[in-house]
Amino acid sequence: MKGLFITLEGSDGCGKSTITRLLTKYLKGEGYSIVTTREPGGTKISEIIRDIILDSKNTKMSAITESLLYAASRAQHVEEIIIPALKEGKIIICERFIDSSLVYQGIGRKLGINKIKEINDFATQNIEPDLTLFFDISPEQAINRRKHRREKDRLERESVKFHKDVYEGYLKIIDMYPERIKTIDATDNLDGTFNQVKRLVNDKLKI
Amino acid sequence: MKGLFITLEGSDGCGKSTITRLLTKYLKGEGYSIVTTREPGGTKISEIIRDIILDSKNTKMSAITESLLYAASRAQHVEEIIIPALKEGKIIICERFIDSSLVYQGIGRKLGINKIKEINDFATQNIEPDLTLFFDISPEQAINRRKHRREKDRLERESVKFHKDVYEGYLKIIDMYPERIKTIDATDNLDGTFNQVKRLVNDKLKI
Repeated sequence: MKGLFITLEGSDGCGKSTITRLLTKYLKGEGYSIVTTREPGGTKISEIIRDIILDSKNTKMSAITESLLYAASRAQHVEEIIIPALKEGKIIICERFIDSSLVYQGIGRKLGINKIKEINDFATQNIEPDLTLFFDISPEQAINRRKHRREKDRLERESVKFHKDVYEGYLKIIDMYPERIKTIDATDNLDGTFNQVKRLVNDKLKI
Repeated sequence: MKGLFITLEGSDGCGKSTITRLLTKYLKGEGYSIVTTREPGGTKISEIIRDIILDSKNTKMSAITESLLYAASRAQHVEEIIIPALKEGKIIICERFIDSSLVYQGIGRKLGINKIKEINDFATQNIEPDLTLFFDISPEQAINRRKHRREKDRLERESVKFHKDVYEGYLKIIDMYPERIKTIDATDNLDGTFNQVKRLVNDKLKI
C-alpha cells in the first residue's frame, strides 16, 4: 500500500472539521490526490449504521452494542474507501478512526482498551494510520465550544464525567503510540493550530 | 441465573419457526413461564440492525461488517431480553443464536470459527445456551422448502455452494459441542419431529 493515512482525533469541538477542510485544500494545492472522509460514516452502509449509533432515541443501547456498531461501520469504511485509496497511492484524511473507539468505548464506556483493540483489529484488517493528529483542548473548553451547536446526539449528551474520562483516555493512548500520535495545541488560534498541523504533515511527506 | 436457555438452529426451511410455536404452546401448557424470541432481532435496536443486515439492496456489505452487525444485534438482545429472562427463571426459546454466526460467518463467509467465537463471546457476555436443537435436513431439501417463500433476503440469495458450506459447518460445530447441541431428524413429519424435540426438552427439564 503506497498511500498515506492521516487521522484526526480529539473531543467534539476541538476543531477537527475545520482543520480537515484546510488540510485537504492545502494538500490538493500541493498536487496530491486526496480522499477526505469521516467516522462513523464514509460509505452508504456506514452512514446507516452511524444513524443508529447517534440517534438520541436509542437510549437503551448497551455499551457492547455501541462498540460493535462502531466496529461494523469502520469495517465497511476500511473495505470500501480506505484500502482502495491506499492502493491507489492517495492521501486519506479521516476524522476519527480506531483511537476514538479505544477512548470512547474502551475507557469512556469502561469496556477495556485491549478488548476494543481486538475487535477493531478484526474490523480494520489490521490497517493503522500512518499519522494521527490529536487536537488537545481541555474537556471544559470542548464542552464550552459545543454549547451553541445544533441538537446534541446520543454521545454528545453524555455527562461531563464521561467527557473527562475520554480526555484522560486520549492522554493514555498517546503514551501507548508515541510514534504515531502527535499532539496539536488546539487552544492556539486557527492559523497557529494549522501551522502545527502543516509542519507535522510536511515532515511525514518530506516536503 | 436460574432460567433455561434453549436455541433452535439449522438452515432456513428446516422447520425452526413451526417447532418454536409448538414448543412454546407445550411448555406454557406445562405451567412454565416462556420467552419466545429470535435472531437477528428480538429488541427494537436489534430489529433495526436486522433490517440493515438482510436488506437485499446492501450488496456491497463486507463479510466482516456483516459479522459485526450480527454480533451487535446479539449484544443488545442478550442485554435487554436474555439476561433479564434468565434472572427471572424463565425458559427462553430462541431461533438462532451464536451457532448461526459460527456457521454462516465463520464457515460460510470464511472468517474463521475462532475469530467469530471471540467477537461473539464479547457480544454475549459469555452466555451460552443450555440446550441447542439442530434441525437436520440436507441443503437440497432446505432450498426446496424455501422455494415458495416470499421475496428472498440478502443471505437467502447466496449460492447453493454457500448453503452447502453452512450445512457442513453445522456438522462441524455439533462435533465441537456434543453436550450442548442435539440433532433432530427434521425430515420426519411434524409430529415425529416435535416428539423428538419434546423428549430432549423434557429430559433437560426432568419432566
